[in-house]
Amino acid sequence: MAATQNNALLEIAQDLRQAAQILASAPTKQKNTAIIATAKAIKEHKSAILAANEKDMLAAQEKTLEASKLDRLALDEARLQAMCEGLEIVAALPDPVAQSIKSWQTENGLRFNQIRTPIGVLAIIYESRPNVTIDAGALCLKSGNGVLLRGGSESFYSSRALHLCLQQGLQVAGLPVAAIAITPSTDRALVGDILTGLDGLIDVIIPRGGKSLIARVQAEARIPVLGHLDGICHIYVDEHAELEKAVAISVNAKMRRPGICEAAETLLVHEKIAPTALPLIAGALADAGCTLRGCERARQIYANMEAAQEQDWSQEYLAPIISIKIVDDIKAAMAHIAQYGSGHTESIITESDTAADAFLTKVDSAIVMQNASTQFADGGEFGFGCEIGIATSRLHARGPVALEGLTTYKYQIRGTGQTRP
Amino acid sequence: MAATQNNALLEIAQDLRQAAQILASAPTKQKNTAIIATAKAIKEHKSAILAANEKDMLAAQEKTLEASKLDRLALDEARLQAMCEGLEIVAALPDPVAQSIKSWQTENGLRFNQIRTPIGVLAIIYESRPNVTIDAGALCLKSGNGVLLRGGSESFYSSRALHLCLQQGLQVAGLPVAAIAITPSTDRALVGDILTGLDGLIDVIIPRGGKSLIARVQAEARIPVLGHLDGICHIYVDEHAELEKAVAISVNAKMRRPGICEAAETLLVHEKIAPTALPLIAGALADAGCTLRGCERARQIYANMEAAQEQDWSQEYLAPIISIKIVDDIKAAMAHIAQYGSGHTESIITESDTAADAFLTKVDSAIVMQNASTQFADGGEFGFGCEIGIATSRLHARGPVALEGLTTYKYQIRGTGQTRP
Repeated sequence: MAATQNNALLEIAQDLRQAAQILASAPTKQKNTAIIATAKAIKEHKSAILAANEKDMLAAQEKTLEASKLDRLALDEARLQAMCEGLEIVAALPDPVAQSIKSWQTENGLRFNQIRTPIGVLAIIYESRPNVTIDAGALCLKSGNGVLLRGGSESFYSSRALHLCLQQGLQVAGLPVAAIAITPSTDRALVGDILTGLDGLIDVIIPRGGKSLIARVQAEARIPVLGHLDGICHIYVDEHAELEKAVAISVNAKMRRPGICEAAETLLVHEKIAPTALPLIAGALADAGCTLRGCERARQIYANMEAAQEQDWSQEYLAPIISIKIVDDIKAAMAHIAQYGSGHTESIITESDTAADAFLTKVDSAIVMQNASTQFADGGEFGFGCEIGIATSRLHARGPVALEGLTTYKYQIRGTGQTRP
Repeated sequence: MAATQNNALLEIAQDLRQAAQILASAPTKQKNTAIIATAKAIKEHKSAILAANEKDMLAAQEKTLEASKLDRLALDEARLQAMCEGLEIVAALPDPVAQSIKSWQTENGLRFNQIRTPIGVLAIIYESRPNVTIDAGALCLKSGNGVLLRGGSESFYSSRALHLCLQQGLQVAGLPVAAIAITPSTDRALVGDILTGLDGLIDVIIPRGGKSLIARVQAEARIPVLGHLDGICHIYVDEHAELEKAVAISVNAKMRRPGICEAAETLLVHEKIAPTALPLIAGALADAGCTLRGCERARQIYANMEAAQEQDWSQEYLAPIISIKIVDDIKAAMAHIAQYGSGHTESIITESDTAADAFLTKVDSAIVMQNASTQFADGGEFGFGCEIGIATSRLHARGPVALEGLTTYKYQIRGTGQTRP
């Protein structure tokens, strides 16, 4: 079955499969011990981790990586501290494994119990973002899943330094260290081995990163893929918006961290409020260093912006650039989102509950908001501790995928000798 | 995007996509009206449906279809009545759409609501089993999903007659009849068009049927597949089994309807109880017309059976044949199931709660039972009204897939101007 010629990888995956079976039925306390010990290891090895990251950053700067990617790659004390806090939150969260989702009894006396179980073994192929190593490791550990991590090549040293902390955590707790594995290299060929050469050893692949990676995974993978696609997120400033909120949220949604998938890429403004709102919002965005690309009507109201082209509406800039369009009404805003959005996160700025209800009901995205920044689209902000990604596919899990998203379920039925008529 | 050359199919799928958007937000009452009207239509058109089925049955008998397939194909008044009862149950069940799964508030005042939404448009490719037409149609209708039905070629006339009843139901309720579509033919080439030629029009494919169909769908499909695989179901008679239950359940699990996926294919018997239990169970199975294929140890206890070969343990007979193995203990039984089972349904016969707990916790199948027949593995028996299939894959849904399994969810977030620090 397993057809890879990469024996090192095959051995890692086989050990992982075995270790995952132990992790699947590990007691909650033991798993939490491992998570807390991981946080302790990060604090202990802080200097080594930052030195590893420094090495990655220097190499990345030499390769003149884009600013948004450098931002994702960079670690500092505050970001390590945030990782540790995420770990503590995951440890404190309820264990999803063996949780009863529903239980009921049928007339013939059969007692049904639907309970959560781990999925099994996951492979996560992600961008050069070291914190994903810790987030993914901790979530898989808590949800009883084995995981094979394959981070981006630019984060090679940082990811390995953080992976060692996860293994130290497992060891302290007496759990098999093989349950959280990392690929021996970041070769692109190795991704092919994961996609097609480990049949029966991996249950699901979670790709995170650029369009070309996702496209490759979806085309080649012979096992289920939990998709994570673009974030073309929208802010829609409704005619009943409060101006102050519209300005603050627009600037935050775009400029807090322009390089993440939950950053807003397009601002839609109701034509009735545009003459007053647009100059304020556009001015604040420009002051914050954002490049503006507007439709013709927007440029008539606020001249100081480039002309948006058709392709701007479907582009994930991941940079301090925003496209701006004046729309006739909320229907036109929702139609624009249906046409160009990626089903990730959209926010309506309005004081009208009617408008908000329509938007939150009809817009078919994983996350729909009223009067809040799209940058809240994050597992941590949802109270999930951290996340393994924002799913934009429609099956299994949608939005931030965390503990529950990493489980499946089974039905337990207890009878007293029932046969079916 | 949509690349099929089959213009009739393309037109059906485009109309379906549009109709599904209306169905997605249709009020519960309207959907229930359509379901009840479908049941009424089945009663009204009973003679026409049975005549259509007669036509299919005659052709199938000429092609000398196997008995289990003829059993699946056959309709009679009782089976039509059962369909109508299933429809009434689905109408009476709560509407999953817009149901709140969870709601909570974070410290910054954001209010979260996770609510169920329809998946969108499903394509169901199924075997020559006419009742699936009604079950799938009713479940998709109630869960707000459009559906493209493609039944097996042997059930061509029966499926079309039942599909007309579904369309009559939609029409009576004032819903678009295009929301439940059936393929214009049952050509095999048309399956390829569904798998690769309708990009953007279908959200998920649910294949039901033989291994070759499933393998083809999983290899060719460019959209997510909700898998439905073999049912290699096991009965394990534990050392603490009550003999009367063991006999009754074994006979029912195999012989009630040997041709369905939840029929037991292998009987495992604890060595300590085998000398008393096996002769009783084997005798009762033989009396009921079942062919027995035993391991060496089993044949020493009950001579009147064929010798089981290695391939017997992984075969889905779908016929009155059962393989029998004596195991050393419950661990050996669970190891056998892990090796040869298909993750569908397994039942332990025991009066020991310890043994039952171990089995129900550790056996990693969609449905695990104590003291009940595997033939209860059916959406109707779970209280789901009916089912669209038993999922044996690990993502999205497992076990009988009914209303909830046909939904996804989204997160609605209501704020008061929050920006992310």
